[in-house]
Amino acid sequence: MTTIYERRARLLGPHMTTFYKEPVHVARGEGVYLWDTDGRQYLDCYNNVPHVGHCHPKVVEAIASQAAVLNTHTRYVHDGIVEYGEALTAKFDHDLDSMVMVCSGSEANDVALRMAQAMTGKTGVITTDNTYHGNTTAVSQLNTSKVPIGGFQEHVQRAPAPDNMMPPGGTREGQAAAFAEGVKQAIAALEENGHGVSALIVCPYFANEGFPTLDAGFLDEAIALVRAAGGIIIADEVQPGFGRIGSHWWGHQKLNFAPDIVTLGKPMGNGHPVAAVITRPEILTCFQEGFKYFNTFGGNPVSAAAAMAVLNVIEDEKLVENAKEVGAYALDLLGELQKRHDVIADVRGSGLFFGAELWRDGKPATALCDAVVEEMRHTGVLLHTEGRFDNTLKIRPPCVFTKENADQLAEVMDAALEKVA
Amino acid sequence: MTTIYERRARLLGPHMTTFYKEPVHVARGEGVYLWDTDGRQYLDCYNNVPHVGHCHPKVVEAIASQAAVLNTHTRYVHDGIVEYGEALTAKFDHDLDSMVMVCSGSEANDVALRMAQAMTGKTGVITTDNTYHGNTTAVSQLNTSKVPIGGFQEHVQRAPAPDNMMPPGGTREGQAAAFAEGVKQAIAALEENGHGVSALIVCPYFANEGFPTLDAGFLDEAIALVRAAGGIIIADEVQPGFGRIGSHWWGHQKLNFAPDIVTLGKPMGNGHPVAAVITRPEILTCFQEGFKYFNTFGGNPVSAAAAMAVLNVIEDEKLVENAKEVGAYALDLLGELQKRHDVIADVRGSGLFFGAELWRDGKPATALCDAVVEEMRHTGVLLHTEGRFDNTLKIRPPCVFTKENADQLAEVMDAALEKVA
Repeated sequence: MTTIYERRARLLGPHMTTFYKEPVHVARGEGVYLWDTDGRQYLDCYNNVPHVGHCHPKVVEAIASQAAVLNTHTRYVHDGIVEYGEALTAKFDHDLDSMVMVCSGSEANDVALRMAQAMTGKTGVITTDNTYHGNTTAVSQLNTSKVPIGGFQEHVQRAPAPDNMMPPGGTREGQAAAFAEGVKQAIAALEENGHGVSALIVCPYFANEGFPTLDAGFLDEAIALVRAAGGIIIADEVQPGFGRIGSHWWGHQKLNFAPDIVTLGKPMGNGHPVAAVITRPEILTCFQEGFKYFNTFGGNPVSAAAAMAVLNVIEDEKLVENAKEVGAYALDLLGELQKRHDVIADVRGSGLFFGAELWRDGKPATALCDAVVEEMRHTGVLLHTEGRFDNTLKIRPPCVFTKENADQLAEVMDAALEKVA
Repeated sequence: MTTIYERRARLLGPHMTTFYKEPVHVARGEGVYLWDTDGRQYLDCYNNVPHVGHCHPKVVEAIASQAAVLNTHTRYVHDGIVEYGEALTAKFDHDLDSMVMVCSGSEANDVALRMAQAMTGKTGVITTDNTYHGNTTAVSQLNTSKVPIGGFQEHVQRAPAPDNMMPPGGTREGQAAAFAEGVKQAIAALEENGHGVSALIVCPYFANEGFPTLDAGFLDEAIALVRAAGGIIIADEVQPGFGRIGSHWWGHQKLNFAPDIVTLGKPMGNGHPVAAVITRPEILTCFQEGFKYFNTFGGNPVSAAAAMAVLNVIEDEKLVENAKEVGAYALDLLGELQKRHDVIADVRGSGLFFGAELWRDGKPATALCDAVVEEMRHTGVLLHTEGRFDNTLKIRPPCVFTKENADQLAEVMDAALEKVA
């Protein structure tokens, strides 16, 4: 008999990988928990898409109710997208009160890059040397995990990503200057090759870069250089946004800078495919005049209803405050583990986006990190790895995560480190 | 007091246009009907996204049920995507039994173009000179409605689109040869400029080109040239697919050719943001080895459930047969109108995708066509325009459209033509 794993590999391709050597065959989710088809429960410490908890009843109800009443596109006028967009943009300063709704963070960044082109008349983009911003043809040029066919294009130039353990420039304190120097060189390269600078695009939490510990003002010098070269600033808030980092609603608030464009995705609809670009009115107008753009599914009434429900639940259940409080508690627990496990070289994070970096014998402990993840999966706790060497345990649970959940996470991690380290 | 229209323009931008001079402020949908906020009913003769009818209860139930149980991504194993993919690919011949699920037709075509690159090692693309395939940066290079900033790129070459009233080559019979000649020139240009031929991408119903009347075999000569040049064939089935054309499930079956890649979108989830690329296993493998690709929302359990419900409803309610029968009936009614209205120069279509082209004084009657659409909107029937000169009334209703609906459509169109022609 053909197993579900074989059928899946045949249908979706042999390279459609899963998490974990023994994949989790999921059946049900609720809050911070997932259950597999054998009824086994897992504490989900990794998934940021179910931002307000797996299958939150208010989001489910919003989707079900609106799907039963109307679901069309934005060539008609509907209150849902307008009410949501007004509520969402109210969460931003810096005159960021215009919106394009799309279906994925990738589509959002694809639009953002064109907005920057339209606004500046230039095509060069600066990003970090260890990043991921999505999967469209244009956006995947920014990614560093795999060289695309035909190679990387010269309109993308990279500055060295900040890093707690191996900071560019040699010290954590010197990273802002090192990053600015990298941006300066990228600007020079783009001016030399004729593309010019349209934008600096960064995740303000440097999530895929390994979420290094950075002070407010970290980007100030780099941003000043980009602006002086005529470029604008895109903050990809797909990972830090919607209050996950606890201290603020958005990553750019934590670093204290004013983006021109913000992109949003994964957590926005708690799993419903919805994403958005937030920008200033003049940039939106310039984009619409430069490019013809219409997104059939973007901002449909059901997507708007799902996203509005998420926004309301974040407020009603005080999930930003929860992320701050439980995140700080959990980080303390990891700090305790660090005292007892030499392999934990660094513990860091903000709110419910934190982790522990593993080193051994003066080197990133990639294989060990993977072994810890696998062991924890078998003990019922799901997380994954991150960072340049995949040697950081990345913890990014639904924002309804509790202190009791954090206790379980720490206990299971402790045991896993005991066993495999 | 600020109106919803003003709030919308402020939030979504002044260029976020609506259908109709007086936009429809929608509140509710059911079957083939929409209602506005004043409770006024409209017969929807245009929207293909609600393929099985606005708010079909079985699709709503599928979405609501699955959203309440689980919604994660495909890094875990879930039965839903596998069961759906197997059911969907069973609708295809030509060894098209591998699938990538994404969120929009644009994402699907963006992936399809990269699959062709990975498979052929070339980057040139051939399409028609009057087309639209989506909105990502890469895919929008195919579109002809607006020149993108920086101009069209030379890796896209175009063959003249077939057309009932102004056929390339001078006669309808000669169009296949004329199209093949255009493709031949495009191939020569791509070989000359170094891109080579990765793919011919066409909607097999030439929907955006004005859905000209074409016989099976129309593309055979062009396809043979593309294959001889090393390229592959992408059929964009976003508009004709899922049985809308009545005679077949897919447009490529009607033209009787074997695509290497098929892209699907709008109707697939009846409004839920879901889309897919269907291809042969070796092409999917080649793509996955050439590019790193993962789509967070693509193929999630709720999207798979919505799409599976649509597939089941099409079968259970015999909607392909309905499209064929009601479409033929409606086309006859348009034929009757043609006898009484000189401005109707051509009536054409297949299944529930048909229309009437308006000419006056030997010229495309663009303004008149628009006036008919506006008049019909005020009489409670929604449709829109299509074709190179926007002088074709485009009718593409939900596939639950009945003969009584067709009677109403014809009556209202008759009256509108009386009034404005």
